[in-house]
Amino acid sequence: MVITLDKAQPIVAAAVAKAKEIGQPMNIAVVDDGANLTAFARMDGAWIGSIDIAISKAFTARAFDTTTRDLGANSQPGQQFYGIYASNHGRVMIFAGGVPLRVGGKVVGAVGVSGGSGEQDQAVAEAAAAACS
Amino acid sequence: MVITLDKAQPIVAAAVAKAKEIGQPMNIAVVDDGANLTAFARMDGAWIGSIDIAISKAFTARAFDTTTRDLGANSQPGQQFYGIYASNHGRVMIFAGGVPLRVGGKVVGAVGVSGGSGEQDQAVAEAAAAACS
Amino acid sequence: MVITLDKAQPIVAAAVAKAKEIGQPMNIAVVDDGANLTAFARMDGAWIGSIDIAISKAFTARAFDTTTRDLGANSQPGQQFYGIYASNHGRVMIFAGGVPLRVGGKVVGAVGVSGGSGEQDQAVAEAAAAACS
Amino acid sequence: MVITLDKAQPIVAAAVAKAKEIGQPMNIAVVDDGANLTAFARMDGAWIGSIDIAISKAFTARAFDTTTRDLGANSQPGQQFYGIYASNHGRVMIFAGGVPLRVGGKVVGAVGVSGGSGEQDQAVAEAAAAACS
Repeated sequence: MVITLDKAQPIVAAAVAKAKEIGQPMNIAVVDDGANLTAFARMDGAWIGSIDIAISKAFTARAFDTTTRDLGANSQPGQQFYGIYASNHGRVMIFAGGVPLRVGGKVVGAVGVSGGSGEQDQAVAEAAAAACS
Repeated sequence: MVITLDKAQPIVAAAVAKAKEIGQPMNIAVVDDGANLTAFARMDGAWIGSIDIAISKAFTARAFDTTTRDLGANSQPGQQFYGIYASNHGRVMIFAGGVPLRVGGKVVGAVGVSGGSGEQDQAVAEAAAAACS
Repeated sequence: MVITLDKAQPIVAAAVAKAKEIGQPMNIAVVDDGANLTAFARMDGAWIGSIDIAISKAFTARAFDTTTRDLGANSQPGQQFYGIYASNHGRVMIFAGGVPLRVGGKVVGAVGVSGGSGEQDQAVAEAAAAACS
Repeated sequence: MVITLDKAQPIVAAAVAKAKEIGQPMNIAVVDDGANLTAFARMDGAWIGSIDIAISKAFTARAFDTTTRDLGANSQPGQQFYGIYASNHGRVMIFAGGVPLRVGGKVVGAVGVSGGSGEQDQAVAEAAAAACS
């Protein structure tokens, strides 16, 4: 499966629905297999600074085929990927909210969510990723 | 009027419809009053390098309250804004495809379209802007 | 309320007055609702490197609707926003001195102050924010 | 003479007065002898994209001790400084609106104005520079 615009939009919509349920406006980005932006939505009142972060979380999750939360755990001082955020011209985010999109185990893209606490971002990103099939 | 997500999405959809009619896949970006990204869509097969250009065209059209086509005409060698593309950290685009969104004459945001010829980008952006009301 | 120039200038002046009281020259920046710079002043002898920092602190405080001090506490190694300073192209500052401007609880902009210790920057920024009404 | 904040603010005020007379909102920046920002004001409704341009025009006018209009004339294709806008990390502007501040023939800083046509920007910058004494 390929992340077409028709596939990406329901993923964004699932994220919006989950964010509304939580009651926290979010920025939501979906990237395709090439880690390139395919769809984006900023909910009303979502943090302006999180536009870039949502897109970068999606990039990161596909660029390394991992959740940004797991990458973050490996990027703390003393860990094996400490300093990775200095790479890729500021596009690597190492906290929760970026989740790969998988079909049959294969990564086909990623979703990045930013606008709340790490836990909220992660919950919304997981709801979005679950809508990928 | 404010460019909420509910206002931005039909503008993107109008651009997609026009691009399909023309038969050229496009990247489409909508920014709000603060020139910050609100919605984005990349149609299947649209140029990857045009993702950034579409977002920058929308930024430019709101940042200077003008179409990027008109700004381009004033930014040629010898014209009054020649060299403006060096400003704003690479976010100023000076060819067709960026159009302000107006309600009652007031600029409330902008749309940026990139993926085809200048004429095609402009036609799609104008169709999108016409959907703003 | 909107942060017009007439609203921003007394906020800057309040910061200057507080900085003089403390005896430490400061750079002071005010951004509006769109996180865009509205007014700036560098007091005589204030650090040159803090010009950019003051502007970025104001951007950050509005971009995330938080003080940069609180954001900093959440961005330490092991915390939920660790690595956030890599986002937004170098414009995110995570130490004290950036404070949202609020009217009736709603964030309408932010002030950023840089030129002294974190405590001094914070004190001046709070004095400035208190002048927003 | 040195461009202190007390010297810079009346220069900004002179620019604001001239811009009001012309009826075009402007961004106004003053830099000191070191080409570093000292004071800035964005008039209500002035173009967001011109914030960066006003600051860069002031930088350029002091960095090369010339008006940006004159530098622009020498930076057209085929001229001796063609391509200079690629230097200094995007801070060189080569169209009208940047004017050195002089006292007794010596350059002590510069003013940069952006928000209207080249002619308008230049007129406002000259009115500002005339207030430097």
